[in-house]
Order: sequence, then structure tokens, then C-alpha cells
Amino acid sequence: MKDKFYNYIQQLQDTICKKLEEIDGKATFHEDIWKRPEGGGGRTRVIQNDTESSGVFEKGGVNISAVHGVLPETMRKHFGVEQGDFFACGLSLVLHPKNPFVPTVHANWRYFEMYNQQGEVVDSWFGGGQDLTPYYLFEEDAKHFHQVCKTACDRHNDGFYKNYKKRCDEYFYNSHRNEARGIGGLFFDYCKQTNEMSMQHWYDFVTEVGNSFLETYVPIVEKRKDIPFTQEHRNWQEIRRGRYVEFNLVHDKGTLFGLKTNGRIESILMSLPPHVQWVYDHHPEKGSEEEKLIQVLEDPKDWV
Amino acid sequence: MKDKFYNYIQQLQDTICKKLEEIDGKATFHEDIWKRPEGGGGRTRVIQNDTESSGVFEKGGVNISAVHGVLPETMRKHFGVEQGDFFACGLSLVLHPKNPFVPTVHANWRYFEMYNQQGEVVDSWFGGGQDLTPYYLFEEDAKHFHQVCKTACDRHNDGFYKNYKKRCDEYFYNSHRNEARGIGGLFFDYCKQTNEMSMQHWYDFVTEVGNSFLETYVPIVEKRKDIPFTQEHRNWQEIRRGRYVEFNLVHDKGTLFGLKTNGRIESILMSLPPHVQWVYDHHPEKGSEEEKLIQVLEDPKDWV
Repeated sequence: MKDKFYNYIQQLQDTICKKLEEIDGKATFHEDIWKRPEGGGGRTRVIQNDTESSGVFEKGGVNISAVHGVLPETMRKHFGVEQGDFFACGLSLVLHPKNPFVPTVHANWRYFEMYNQQGEVVDSWFGGGQDLTPYYLFEEDAKHFHQVCKTACDRHNDGFYKNYKKRCDEYFYNSHRNEARGIGGLFFDYCKQTNEMSMQHWYDFVTEVGNSFLETYVPIVEKRKDIPFTQEHRNWQEIRRGRYVEFNLVHDKGTLFGLKTNGRIESILMSLPPHVQWVYDHHPEKGSEEEKLIQVLEDPKDWV
Repeated sequence: MKDKFYNYIQQLQDTICKKLEEIDGKATFHEDIWKRPEGGGGRTRVIQNDTESSGVFEKGGVNISAVHGVLPETMRKHFGVEQGDFFACGLSLVLHPKNPFVPTVHANWRYFEMYNQQGEVVDSWFGGGQDLTPYYLFEEDAKHFHQVCKTACDRHNDGFYKNYKKRCDEYFYNSHRNEARGIGGLFFDYCKQTNEMSMQHWYDFVTEVGNSFLETYVPIVEKRKDIPFTQEHRNWQEIRRGRYVEFNLVHDKGTLFGLKTNGRIESILMSLPPHVQWVYDHHPEKGSEEEKLIQVLEDPKDWV
């Protein structure tokens, strides 16, 4: 299973990067191969456009990694085990478009195995999801994103979409701001073998979701990338990007785990937006498009 | 003691804000008075200049607060007590100048009391410090800042400067980057009554340090604020400000404590810089002024 899933995410990285370069039309992905001293490594691919250049993605990364070895102390604590070895692989992506009318997107799909001292697999699970962070709300885009997520889920279990949509709203929440990071999507974790779901079933589900990614996001980019925008729209985007930074650095378990366990910092922090603003006590004008977004973030909706 | 120290920080806030407005020459502090539902409140003062305007401080805050009530759960855990009431007051300031040759400065001086169920003081202590975060290193500025800190310390105890300088280097450290946030200064905490130091002695020490603040910083601002700079200098400043954000949101105990205990978010996060950049895997050129700064941050120096 670990080889099968790692092959899958390698191919998915290629497919996604190729399509994104096509859409960008200007920048290409820069690739860094890195090794983890304790075992494994990764293939980081980053795309960057200056604010002045005409590409679509101001900054983005589509990264894969496969790491293994002795469970680090923080992971032993987290999983409540005394010792053991682990394997973990996954694909993580974050795209920060330049145009404030194009939403930021994040996705991650991962697989984890734990071994006993004889090297036997004692536990394994999948996790992942994808979520959208708009700066201006187009309801039809939100509906499209969620509908594609739901269709992928529904092929595997009637209850998945409702459950994983709710968990996404709960997870990507800036509790110190009393608002969601974005308009959600899917979040699932610890997807383990049950009577109904074998690991092969979970593999089919996770790859279905992964395969649906371009369909969730690309039509939205195509539709919004050429809308004219002003410096005021950019300022709002950069202020909202500040909330994105706050979530990733204060609340996101994956980011904090990476920062505190000697992960590859540049691959982890590629998720941070290129240009960001913090303005003291900023509030959008009553009745504005900016305020409309906040209202939805404060009170997550059902989109489909 | 609590009233005496609160009076002191009120006056110090006035003195510092007045001087900073004089230096800025354009913007003035905007004041917000706020109440804490559970007891107490604060007086937040923020100064902001657009990037286009000609003032010195792009963003800064000089805030005081005095809060009291039942110890929140996180504080009970932190101090290892089952119940009790507390009082805490302090002044916090952060200044982000526009000119990349002027360093960012942070300072905080605070006083804490804990009470038993009879309302008697069972414990009390002072804490605080001040530290400098340059974007370009002027050794004479670093020496000046540390010398004024040392002179204030030496009036009270020969060992204070050495000890509190070391603790400052240790505390303001971005462990995930293997570099200090800046070039340090002073950091002290849990300054409690001993055979040698009464609380009055600690009050004299902390207020001496607080009174020295303008002398540590203002001469540096005056000397550097009119140096011409380019967009490249600004880019470097904004990238380094990203490290400042990383420290405050990932490592700073005060910030995280505030965010997780329903503090006044805007007063806490006034510390975040106005314009910030994250560039993937950015490294300064060999032999450049930018690299010279990094070398000092990776290996903190003795400045006096």
C-alpha cells in the first residue's frame, strides 16, 4: 500500500503541476529534491510570480514527501506509544493567486504506517482534504467547489461529505478571530480499516478525492483570473492573507509539528503567502463585498 | 505596589508616546480604551503611516493594561495552582519603522500579583525587558543599545546585565530557523522578593530600565531615519519582518497566552508588522550586508 500510494502522489504531483503551469502561462515550477537525515525526503515544487509579472499564481507549492524512521518523541507522545518505527508520505499544495478575485486553495492527501519492533505494520491510516479561501465571495464558486467534493465522496459513502465538510469547518477555524479561515471543503483523518472499509477502499476514496482536485479549482481560476482589480482589492487580499498566516502558524497542527520536529522548513512554510499586511483593528465597510465575506466566515454555510 | 506600578506605566506611556510623535513628525497615536469582561482593561495607542507618507513609524503600538479576576485555567495550569485570583499590569510596545535602516524595537515591563481566597497577596513578581531587531547591522547602534541597558542594570546589580542579556538571546530565538529574532537586549521574569532584593528594590530596577528605553532607541532612530533606501532594501526588511511574525505567532509565550485566553486580539497583534513578505528559500548574497546580519543572528555576540 505504501508504495502504491507513493506512486500515486508522484503522478498526481506531475499532473497537477503541468495543469497549473498551463493556466499560469508565465512561471514554471522550480523543483528541489531534499533528503531527511533520519530517513526519506521529498520533492518540493514551487511557482512564483513577481507582483509585476503577468502570471496567475503569485506563489504556490505542490510538494510530496515520504519519510520514515524511528518515531520522534513528539509523535510518540501524540500517538501514546512508547517506541516504534513509522512511514509517512503525502502531497501538500497551497496556491496563492495574484488576482484577489481568485481564491487561495489548499489540499493534502497522506498515508501513515506504524511498525512494531519486528517491523510488522501495527497500524495504518489515510488522511487529507482540500479547502478554499476566497477574498471575495462568489456563491457559485463555493457551490462548485463543494459540489465536486461531494460527488467524489458520494461515490464511496453517503455520509462522507456531510461528515468531512463539518470537520473541515471545525479544523480550519481561527478561534482567536471567531471566524473560519475560508469556506471549507473536506477534512478527514485516521481513516483506518473497518468492517465496511478495507484499506483498499480508503485508497480508492482518497485517490478519487485527489483526482477531483483540478476539477474543484481550475474552473474557478479560469473564470476569475482576468477580472480587473484595484489596489484596494489587493489591500483586502493581503490583510486576509494575514489571517491565513495566523491560522497556519498558531493553529495548524501539521505546520507546528513540522516546525518542532526539524522538518524541511522551506517546504513547510511555502504555504505562507508572498505579500501580507497587518492593519490595526481593520473592519470592512458596512454592506461591502468585503463584509459579505466575513459574515460567511463567521457562520459557515451549507453550499450544496 | 500594584497602584504605584500602574501609575508609573501610565506616565511612561504618555512620555514615550509624546517623544515618538515628535520624532515621527507626521502621524499621531490613535487611542482605544477597552474593558475586559472578566475585570480590568487597557489603553491601546497605535501609530500608523502609509508606506507613501513621510512619517518615521510605519506601524507601532504603545499599550498599557491592568487586568484582574479569577485565574483562567491556562494560568492555573501554568503556575501549578488549583485556584486563586490575580492582578497583572504592564506596558508593551513594538515599533516598526518604515526605513529599513532603522531597527524594530520591542519592550515590555509588567507586574503580577496572586491572591489566596482571603484576598491576601501570596506571590508577586516583576518581569520585562527590551530588545532590538535590525534589518541592517550597524555595530555602533548595537553597542549603544546594549550599553544603555547595561548602565541601567549596573546601578542595581553587577550580575544583572550579563544574566538578562543571555536570557534575552535565549528567549527571542526562532529555533525552527536556527537564528535569533534580533540582536537582543534584556529579558527578566519572576523577579521576586529575596534577602537582597525587596519588591521596592525590584520596582526601582524595573522603572530604571523603563526610564532608559527612550535613551536606548531614540538616538538610533535619529541617526538612521533619513538614510536613502531602495525597493531592494524594503524587500529585505519585509522578508525579515516575516521572521518577526514567525517568532511572535509560533514561539512567543505572551502572544500565544493572549490568543488562547480571550485577550484583546487587536492589542496583542498590534505587534505584527504592516507589510510582510515570504519568499521561498530566500538567501542573501555572499558577502552582502544582508548576509552580515544573518551571521550575527546565528551566533549572538557580546556587544559591550
